Amino acid sequence: MQNPLPSQYPLIQAPLAGAQNSAMTIAVCRAGGLGSLAAAMLPIDKLEQEIQTIQAACDKPFNVNFFAHTLPEITSEQNDKWLNLLDKYFNELGIDKNALPQGVLRRPFDENQLSIVEKYRPSVVSFHFGLPEKRLLDAVKATGAMVLSSATTLKEGLWLQENGADCVIAQGVEAGGHRGVFLENDLSTQMGVLPLTELLARKLRIPVIAAGGIVDTASIQAALKLGAAAVQVGTAYMLCEESTIGVLHRQALENAARLPENYPTAVTNIFSGRPARGIVTRLMQETGFIHKDALPFPFAATATGALKAVAEKQGNTDFSNLWCGQNPTGCKNISAYDLTRELLAAFE
Amino acid sequence: MQNPLPSQYPLIQAPLAGAQNSAMTIAVCRAGGLGSLAAAMLPIDKLEQEIQTIQAACDKPFNVNFFAHTLPEITSEQNDKWLNLLDKYFNELGIDKNALPQGVLRRPFDENQLSIVEKYRPSVVSFHFGLPEKRLLDAVKATGAMVLSSATTLKEGLWLQENGADCVIAQGVEAGGHRGVFLENDLSTQMGVLPLTELLARKLRIPVIAAGGIVDTASIQAALKLGAAAVQVGTAYMLCEESTIGVLHRQALENAARLPENYPTAVTNIFSGRPARGIVTRLMQETGFIHKDALPFPFAATATGALKAVAEKQGNTDFSNLWCGQNPTGCKNISAYDLTRELLAAFE
Repeated sequence: MQNPLPSQYPLIQAPLAGAQNSAMTIAVCRAGGLGSLAAAMLPIDKLEQEIQTIQAACDKPFNVNFFAHTLPEITSEQNDKWLNLLDKYFNELGIDKNALPQGVLRRPFDENQLSIVEKYRPSVVSFHFGLPEKRLLDAVKATGAMVLSSATTLKEGLWLQENGADCVIAQGVEAGGHRGVFLENDLSTQMGVLPLTELLARKLRIPVIAAGGIVDTASIQAALKLGAAAVQVGTAYMLCEESTIGVLHRQALENAARLPENYPTAVTNIFSGRPARGIVTRLMQETGFIHKDALPFPFAATATGALKAVAEKQGNTDFSNLWCGQNPTGCKNISAYDLTRELLAAFE
Repeated sequence: MQNPLPSQYPLIQAPLAGAQNSAMTIAVCRAGGLGSLAAAMLPIDKLEQEIQTIQAACDKPFNVNFFAHTLPEITSEQNDKWLNLLDKYFNELGIDKNALPQGVLRRPFDENQLSIVEKYRPSVVSFHFGLPEKRLLDAVKATGAMVLSSATTLKEGLWLQENGADCVIAQGVEAGGHRGVFLENDLSTQMGVLPLTELLARKLRIPVIAAGGIVDTASIQAALKLGAAAVQVGTAYMLCEESTIGVLHRQALENAARLPENYPTAVTNIFSGRPARGIVTRLMQETGFIHKDALPFPFAATATGALKAVAEKQGNTDFSNLWCGQNPTGCKNISAYDLTRELLAAFE
């Protein structure tokens, strides 16, 4: 199948918000893949600086990823319920729940980010959680950028095709981090990457990119058999030298890569308010993976981020969002350049 | 990879309890696959008769499948809670909840079934929900039968290898019907077939059979790329001429095969007490897919079976367990022989 991406090979390094910066993007681009920059947690000046760094370092095409959610209004009642749920943990860690530090909020794509896209014209712009409103999307497309977004069901894939995506990422339920789900209310509809990729490839006119469980040449070749035109790899990059995750997350991934049977993952909304897959930790188990009182995305992260920060200083991951997909065995502590070259052997 | 199965090709027709009889087994065996007979819902004399029919019709190896659960004790309190949950539906359909017809109970493997195995010596015996107690398992193995069972996680696969399985079926979360899960308590651990197959193939010494989302030559070839030594196909056989499902289930599968985006499936415990995947119906939606008050397997099926029977007479599937995997597009109203031949092209 023809490579639909502007990169040399049809492989995308998944944007890893909070776990990477331009160094990873550059390494992957240099190796021949499509490196991504995760913009959702970057202040606007930092985003601009990172793009400048990428463009100065290499003239390859790259992807900038934004979130396309809308910021909800939170009532004080919702906030109280949520803080009450976590009360015993605040007490345990000696945190004043009325003085929580305002962490980095995941922001939706807006005029400011659009202006950066218009100024620096990345070859590819990808969105998570659907697509931004038409006016913003049209402006992105007017820059000539190829637009990608993730579908977790066939229905979402059809919607993305109808609403302007140039390619659809088939994000299987196996994928680590936030699920791109945007039309469905119940997680029971979430599909495995194998049938999702095959169904989307059969039913859509536009190319399909397989994501979730894609960690090595074997899984890449399986995805191609299913009709994927490209693949996206996330978890496998998270142990790379360029990864910016903390030492405890790194340790957890190393353990999971060695003994995956002992480090199950689950989809939880407890950390951010939206479902995301990570290694099971104490907070997830004690609240239940999905809790109705978790503040809507992204606001839950303020409280859980505070718990995580204090607990991790004590060396414990009870409250950590250890994002990880269902197959961590592709994680390697090597450069993202070398990992990409290894993965690209699948296309030889 | 070498075919680990005694059949000509490494393809198993998944046992479809309640949806098949010996006609399907024979058709698949004749075509070169490994036909299965689902024994869990057959009275012992019927089981014997079906095996005689198979052996009279063809001298190919075949598989007999049993369930390996244990029958729980039910308290009257549990029973009352369950019947109360369904009370409004009994009223709606005019069913006397104190006089529910005793439907066909799914029975665990026992001495009687063992005696049939010993008498007729099928080449392959597969179990669902783990393995039977050692004494029974040893007796099965003493007949020379190859023993298979399903794993839904890496941990379950390691357990099955340790406890006497000759091959492990990697049952991805995509699969229709009952999940083989037997060690895990939380369904969040259930893995997609792509990473599950690959992890089991890497970590086990014994061969791995991919199941879930395997519906055509492309998905078979994808499974082989992941290290599967064989595949198991279920849903795709359910529209075959030999399928014994009712007209309403048949209609639902035809609709799902044509417009899969409109017929999502979900894993529910509401029909039998154990998690199983089917097309979403009213009962599942109204009770919630997983309900803590569902009577333990297999006893929930008595009440839901009564609801289904009465509702289906009125032509409605509100209470039907429409078992179906995540990719119904492989379903074809052709003979199981022809479908098997089409699938086996994957190995040419």
